Amino acid sequence: MIDGCPALLPLSRDVIQRELDRRKPGGGGASTTRNETDQCEILSGVFEGQTLGTPIAIIIRNTAHNSADYDHLKDIFRPGHADWCWEAKFGIRDHRGGGRSSARETAGRVAAGAVAKALLARSGISVQAWVSEIGGISAPHPSESSFDFEEAERNSLRVPCAAAAQEIAALIEQLRAEQDSIGGVVNCRVLNLVPGLGEPVFDKLDALLAQALLSVGAAKGIEFGSGFDAARSRGSENNDRPCTQDNNAGGMAGGISTGNTLEFRVAFKAVPSIAREQETRDRSGAIRSLHVQGRHDVCVCPRAVPVVEAMTALVLADLMLQNRSARIAP
Amino acid sequence: MIDGCPALLPLSRDVIQRELDRRKPGGGGASTTRNETDQCEILSGVFEGQTLGTPIAIIIRNTAHNSADYDHLKDIFRPGHADWCWEAKFGIRDHRGGGRSSARETAGRVAAGAVAKALLARSGISVQAWVSEIGGISAPHPSESSFDFEEAERNSLRVPCAAAAQEIAALIEQLRAEQDSIGGVVNCRVLNLVPGLGEPVFDKLDALLAQALLSVGAAKGIEFGSGFDAARSRGSENNDRPCTQDNNAGGMAGGISTGNTLEFRVAFKAVPSIAREQETRDRSGAIRSLHVQGRHDVCVCPRAVPVVEAMTALVLADLMLQNRSARIAP
Amino acid sequence: MIDGCPALLPLSRDVIQRELDRRKPGGGGASTTRNETDQCEILSGVFEGQTLGTPIAIIIRNTAHNSADYDHLKDIFRPGHADWCWEAKFGIRDHRGGGRSSARETAGRVAAGAVAKALLARSGISVQAWVSEIGGISAPHPSESSFDFEEAERNSLRVPCAAAAQEIAALIEQLRAEQDSIGGVVNCRVLNLVPGLGEPVFDKLDALLAQALLSVGAAKGIEFGSGFDAARSRGSENNDRPCTQDNNAGGMAGGISTGNTLEFRVAFKAVPSIAREQETRDRSGAIRSLHVQGRHDVCVCPRAVPVVEAMTALVLADLMLQNRSARIAP
Amino acid sequence: MIDGCPALLPLSRDVIQRELDRRKPGGGGASTTRNETDQCEILSGVFEGQTLGTPIAIIIRNTAHNSADYDHLKDIFRPGHADWCWEAKFGIRDHRGGGRSSARETAGRVAAGAVAKALLARSGISVQAWVSEIGGISAPHPSESSFDFEEAERNSLRVPCAAAAQEIAALIEQLRAEQDSIGGVVNCRVLNLVPGLGEPVFDKLDALLAQALLSVGAAKGIEFGSGFDAARSRGSENNDRPCTQDNNAGGMAGGISTGNTLEFRVAFKAVPSIAREQETRDRSGAIRSLHVQGRHDVCVCPRAVPVVEAMTALVLADLMLQNRSARIAP
Repeated sequence: MIDGCPALLPLSRDVIQRELDRRKPGGGGASTTRNETDQCEILSGVFEGQTLGTPIAIIIRNTAHNSADYDHLKDIFRPGHADWCWEAKFGIRDHRGGGRSSARETAGRVAAGAVAKALLARSGISVQAWVSEIGGISAPHPSESSFDFEEAERNSLRVPCAAAAQEIAALIEQLRAEQDSIGGVVNCRVLNLVPGLGEPVFDKLDALLAQALLSVGAAKGIEFGSGFDAARSRGSENNDRPCTQDNNAGGMAGGISTGNTLEFRVAFKAVPSIAREQETRDRSGAIRSLHVQGRHDVCVCPRAVPVVEAMTALVLADLMLQNRSARIAP
Repeated sequence: MIDGCPALLPLSRDVIQRELDRRKPGGGGASTTRNETDQCEILSGVFEGQTLGTPIAIIIRNTAHNSADYDHLKDIFRPGHADWCWEAKFGIRDHRGGGRSSARETAGRVAAGAVAKALLARSGISVQAWVSEIGGISAPHPSESSFDFEEAERNSLRVPCAAAAQEIAALIEQLRAEQDSIGGVVNCRVLNLVPGLGEPVFDKLDALLAQALLSVGAAKGIEFGSGFDAARSRGSENNDRPCTQDNNAGGMAGGISTGNTLEFRVAFKAVPSIAREQETRDRSGAIRSLHVQGRHDVCVCPRAVPVVEAMTALVLADLMLQNRSARIAP
Repeated sequence: MIDGCPALLPLSRDVIQRELDRRKPGGGGASTTRNETDQCEILSGVFEGQTLGTPIAIIIRNTAHNSADYDHLKDIFRPGHADWCWEAKFGIRDHRGGGRSSARETAGRVAAGAVAKALLARSGISVQAWVSEIGGISAPHPSESSFDFEEAERNSLRVPCAAAAQEIAALIEQLRAEQDSIGGVVNCRVLNLVPGLGEPVFDKLDALLAQALLSVGAAKGIEFGSGFDAARSRGSENNDRPCTQDNNAGGMAGGISTGNTLEFRVAFKAVPSIAREQETRDRSGAIRSLHVQGRHDVCVCPRAVPVVEAMTALVLADLMLQNRSARIAP
Repeated sequence: MIDGCPALLPLSRDVIQRELDRRKPGGGGASTTRNETDQCEILSGVFEGQTLGTPIAIIIRNTAHNSADYDHLKDIFRPGHADWCWEAKFGIRDHRGGGRSSARETAGRVAAGAVAKALLARSGISVQAWVSEIGGISAPHPSESSFDFEEAERNSLRVPCAAAAQEIAALIEQLRAEQDSIGGVVNCRVLNLVPGLGEPVFDKLDALLAQALLSVGAAKGIEFGSGFDAARSRGSENNDRPCTQDNNAGGMAGGISTGNTLEFRVAFKAVPSIAREQETRDRSGAIRSLHVQGRHDVCVCPRAVPVVEAMTALVLADLMLQNRSARIAP
């Protein structure tokens, strides 16, 4: 359910489906080989190819789902998952795939993000994410000549460099053979952003993005611009000169966008569902041994790329709509 | 203005003033030697030593402020500050110290946090932050024997190890002599937290903390548990077993607290106001040379410690109050 | 989409369908004879007969809808409807039945209200509405012996008195013959409400109910307790003595519930869609004559009864959930 | 604390003080003769005569207040007041004048409303309220020739007709002699409002105004346009033709403003504090006799006039700021 999208934005089911397809398992890559078709249907808010200004409801039915696959998880808590604290919170849990804590939940984010990206595109703003690191193997930074953003959309690992992609693919295959998984880092940049987005105190641009991105399952950290490296830098090195291309701050100052390229990185932990046997606990507290069944991604990062873009676009589109009214009294 | 605090919480001006005093410049340490008395007055919401359940208004007057100190900044934009994008956003700017983008703004956060900490203390929950790294010099981790939390409250640098504090103090003095500044990292842990805090999708515990902490000026990144290191780890290493002391996830799973110690780290950039001459731009776009006047902190981290605690306590107190009602139908 | 319902509330599709059936056209009464089946399907949030604590999505497909019925309204604005100002606001309008300004929109409110009523019922609280007046013909007040609440559920006009219902039915038939419509008043009372609901300033109990009830289409006014009559009363007559059954204030004081019966009345205007020919304007501003096609209710009030109950239950359930946490510090 | 006011609005303390002076007791009229000076001070958000776009804090100190006047109310609950249910909610109560349930609380609303009125004035929109009825004596409607809005600002009763004002003044004096109080009705209209304000479902224009106005203490009902009279009208009479001056609906349709004059009426109950001896209850539940001390208004309506204007202006200014962005995609 998307609320707040203005009227008269051209929008079709295809625009949304295209983003959902980017989130689908890539086949031979780091992803699961489950078949998730993820076909979307627009229920409301669009009329004759344009938005109505009223809420847009989209439904994506889970056709691949087989509840019986999850019967062995009814009384057991998976390591690295939220099963246990979910029961501590709600006193009840839908054990069939994790319910709202399932990674499938990101399909809704990607669908909503497609609308936000369409809105931003009308102002010339583009949001681009890619996999910058998996298991310690790094892709080049945009400042390096080997960085090739179009390559990231060509390979199923979303790595912006063919050589690095090949090296990472080998690591993924090795881990798959070892029935293990691995974490990684997704980078995101926003081109042509307007200055002035974000509020001075609690709703700083970085604060809003941090909430949006850390709300994605498996995300464990975020840093803006030079980030944790800035913690080791001197003011004389790290200070950006106003109205220049200096960008240690990642496109913002005091929580407000400067108009420079917005840049941040999100750390993702390893997929907790691994085929390897693990020690865990059941509801009675007893130690149990668990084989998590089903086919799971080795690394979440390639499929997280459109999710990172979606959450970023949603925050920015929301700020763009607010900003026009906030700036100057009529 | 603090809204949402329940009635009948014992509260005095002293409880708030004590936290404000922890935020004051330490004198010989990393901080400015400006005299900020920061005396608070409670205007409403407390009656005969107890909260009324209605909003608590607290006022802290800025007595040390001298507007004339800032006259040289009227038409010039400071490097590393929000002066320029503030004008881009609002078309107007109070140049006398940065207005709401001034670090003084954190005094209000600390005052509100004192109330939140008092509320959490009634459930036995304590929020503890310390400086874990400045300019690449690290303090020990709580898992190391040389970690001494009480030491962090004894030295003005808030470093939990006397030897590391001494080494960092020497670096600070050197940077002060060089008219420069430096970044650092603040760690935070929460003891005795209840399980079940945080919502499954957008309002995950880490997402809410990330917004709260990144809304602090100069914060450039946050990581939970093993954080960016988790991005380099395998699932077989990084997965926490439920109902054990395993804690790579930092006290949460799926955005919901587990009851284990909550742990995260916040990166702060170097203080942008340095005495050294810097190149910058004025309102006309012309290149200008600037000496930022006044006495500024060399490193923001020691004084950020109570701010990090305050923001953490505010998020947790809010979730505690919501949680009792959210869990189980009457 | 219902967010905020706690976990472990027993809930089935039947509980919701029963309320939707109360909203259906009554057949021979004041209502349309269109066939609206309004069958609901629960998509999420309920597991093995209990709520999960996560959002409950319910879908009600509009099977009776025939878009061609509305083709004559494409370029014309109906009198008494929002067609014109909708276009002024959004620049686009779905002319097929009014979109979100259609009375069908209340089906979602009734479905959500069924969940809220189930929640309140667990605390012994019941919300009861009835038609108290149509076209100047009044039903008796609960303080009168001829008031019979069960009768209101027996007759399709929802009038709590068989004699008054008969008189009103005759008026409805006469108006239907004259191709006209009529307004009326719906009364609502809440039994066994707890004291202490509502906030002291902006979120007073009556303020929240007023927003909720005036958000129902065709509602034009609301009054609490003695309401507009209170405007003609003296303090010596109108003041309720605390902790007594005095109830001129309608079960609240200073915006907070007292624990006495909550009482208010909502005025509804006549249904604007009448079969009679009316003068109106088209998109070019030209005067046009319009026969609104289709079968429409003569009076909205009987079908508004479950909607009034639903909105009331939603406000109260929300306050009940907040209230437990708001009252006293842990 | 006013949040959301855009930058660059010319604003001085005088603009706010002028509205606060309109709320002051009139001296010989229906009002108390207590001396409330209500001098305001702007603490933040305004710089060199213009708003900064950041929150505007205004403080009004209560200089006339003498706590000892209220000592006799410590253990007793006043009839018609919120004393009892306040204790039921919070378990604690500031008995010195009612705290946030005091009518003094409206001073803050009027100060904030002054800013909203200044903002609306820049779009040519004016909000005008007056006393239309006290104790059954009515002032003329704007459609009648004897209606004189400027007269309402001349007499201390805010009645738009000198003859009616005189008649009401006599009633007020009689009630004061009888140590009693009386209710009344305040009308409000908004001239030159733009079409398109308000949202289609829950945030209808009338719903938002209803919440805002019923949040004013002593308000017991609201009706829009022909209001409760519409409940007795036929569709053929009550339907407004689009794009005409027809205005039974009070300037809105489907919850969205039409651009016609916005019109509504608010019913206020009699002031509950009367000098006459009243029966009541104390904290132990015992019956007690009470003389409420101090000088209180006989009728709240004249002083409610600027409060009604303020709440209306706040709702409309907020919608105006949102509306510019909501309408059409960039």
